[in-house]
Amino acid sequence: MPPGEFDFIEWIRTQQPASAQVPLPAGDDLAVLHWPPDDLLLVGVDQVLDGVHFDSKVHAPRQIGRKVMNRNLSDCAAMACLPAAAVATVALPRGSSLAYAQELYLGLRQAADPFNCPIVGGDTASWEGKLLVTVTILGKSAGISPLTRQGARPGDHIYVTGPLGGSILGRHLDFVPRIALARQLAQTGRISAMIDLSDGLSRDLRHICRQSRVGAVIDAALVPIHEDALRLALQDQRSPLEHALHDGEDHELLFTAAEGEYPDSIRIGRVTAETQILLQQADRLEPLVAGGWEHPL
Amino acid sequence: MPPGEFDFIEWIRTQQPASAQVPLPAGDDLAVLHWPPDDLLLVGVDQVLDGVHFDSKVHAPRQIGRKVMNRNLSDCAAMACLPAAAVATVALPRGSSLAYAQELYLGLRQAADPFNCPIVGGDTASWEGKLLVTVTILGKSAGISPLTRQGARPGDHIYVTGPLGGSILGRHLDFVPRIALARQLAQTGRISAMIDLSDGLSRDLRHICRQSRVGAVIDAALVPIHEDALRLALQDQRSPLEHALHDGEDHELLFTAAEGEYPDSIRIGRVTAETQILLQQADRLEPLVAGGWEHPL
Repeated sequence: MPPGEFDFIEWIRTQQPASAQVPLPAGDDLAVLHWPPDDLLLVGVDQVLDGVHFDSKVHAPRQIGRKVMNRNLSDCAAMACLPAAAVATVALPRGSSLAYAQELYLGLRQAADPFNCPIVGGDTASWEGKLLVTVTILGKSAGISPLTRQGARPGDHIYVTGPLGGSILGRHLDFVPRIALARQLAQTGRISAMIDLSDGLSRDLRHICRQSRVGAVIDAALVPIHEDALRLALQDQRSPLEHALHDGEDHELLFTAAEGEYPDSIRIGRVTAETQILLQQADRLEPLVAGGWEHPL
Repeated sequence: MPPGEFDFIEWIRTQQPASAQVPLPAGDDLAVLHWPPDDLLLVGVDQVLDGVHFDSKVHAPRQIGRKVMNRNLSDCAAMACLPAAAVATVALPRGSSLAYAQELYLGLRQAADPFNCPIVGGDTASWEGKLLVTVTILGKSAGISPLTRQGARPGDHIYVTGPLGGSILGRHLDFVPRIALARQLAQTGRISAMIDLSDGLSRDLRHICRQSRVGAVIDAALVPIHEDALRLALQDQRSPLEHALHDGEDHELLFTAAEGEYPDSIRIGRVTAETQILLQQADRLEPLVAGGWEHPL
């Protein structure tokens, strides 16, 4: 008999022992957690799909596992919460080896372990279909009120935590979620709205503006451009700035705050009362059209 | 431009307003929940895959959505907890209509709403692949200690909450999670271990025995056989009893307890100190081989 899902589950059980916070060993119908009494619970889920977020013919399972966990950890950063626990699913193409499934799991762990985020449960199946991995993350507020997309105020300034663009050259698979920095920023008490850059600056800024009912002006000269955006611009017809504005999966933080100095942060524009989103380039002021990633249905 | 994921997300936002327990409207990086201070948090995830758990050419999206939510709610029943909130993902075949995605969501809601379980977040994408839906469920203990798979003791009796077998004829898509009954059973204080029947009696009993380090004897004459098992036995070479013992997705409860009368429960055997799992048929006592569903990798 070929290895089955229970062999995989059996192996996983040996990887994650019970703990004070997770009193029941893995393998029941649901995982059981003690939840700290004064903490808000945050929860979200993210999936990665073969051919969309990665290419299983090119990328190793360890990288794929790391990516999906890091995407979820980056959502924790966006809200300035601490990851508390995760559950995962994997849909494996029929005939995948046990070793392949184990590598996926080890990728999840490699991303989660530095944040003390245990993987407390999951579901595995195989099918006549392509690889798909999901992670659901639980976050705890742990003394810091969650930052949302809806607090930006006219007069605030707009900041990002690192250079942008060209993540497709490799960084989309290998980034460090900005959780520590997010907590540090939130503790200043001056951040009004925050999001992580997954869909691209021009699109993610739109989420903040829309939910805060404000507009924005981005100063093109201030947008930090990653060297990957420069490299990519040499290969295609788009400028480095276009890559920085529209490419997805940077997973830096985008936030609004009262004007000031913030750690590891670069000011790129300001929040306006008018609800347009504009790009200022030299003397020209024109609409910043969302060019980031949207899955068509 | 064809409808995109943001059109779907926009529509979903109108479906689930903020509430006292979920103070932030849907659509941030993570959902935020107030968690009751004395409640344990339970969490699990389950996926349904086209061609494995349903057939998208035959089954309506409303049914598929209902099924995956009900599977997760049934895991809450297995632990005797109350569903508190859910998040969901959907991977849609490229070119799916917005209406199809909406029907999937409405199926999720149709199953969750009777249990006051809000869908607080999710992720949607489309791909050159097949339909896959996941639900992650959060449960709260709400005054009842979770029932696990690991408390069965020699001398306990074994019970199921309804007739078994032949769910493939339709019940696998259309069952009512036994949450109210599970809470009622747990409140007797006499249930030592519980699981919901998803993989089939012969396999799920094995999970209880293994995690409780006990064995079992099932009395064939006591196993309640669903009329679907009788109907199916007329179409294939297997007996109604075989269907009742080995078919999956009944989603009845299987539990062990001190001998007694329990609501809506049928005694089918007993727990033994010897770790074998046996089937008693007339005078014959033979191993009950796990014949239920295991996904090969």
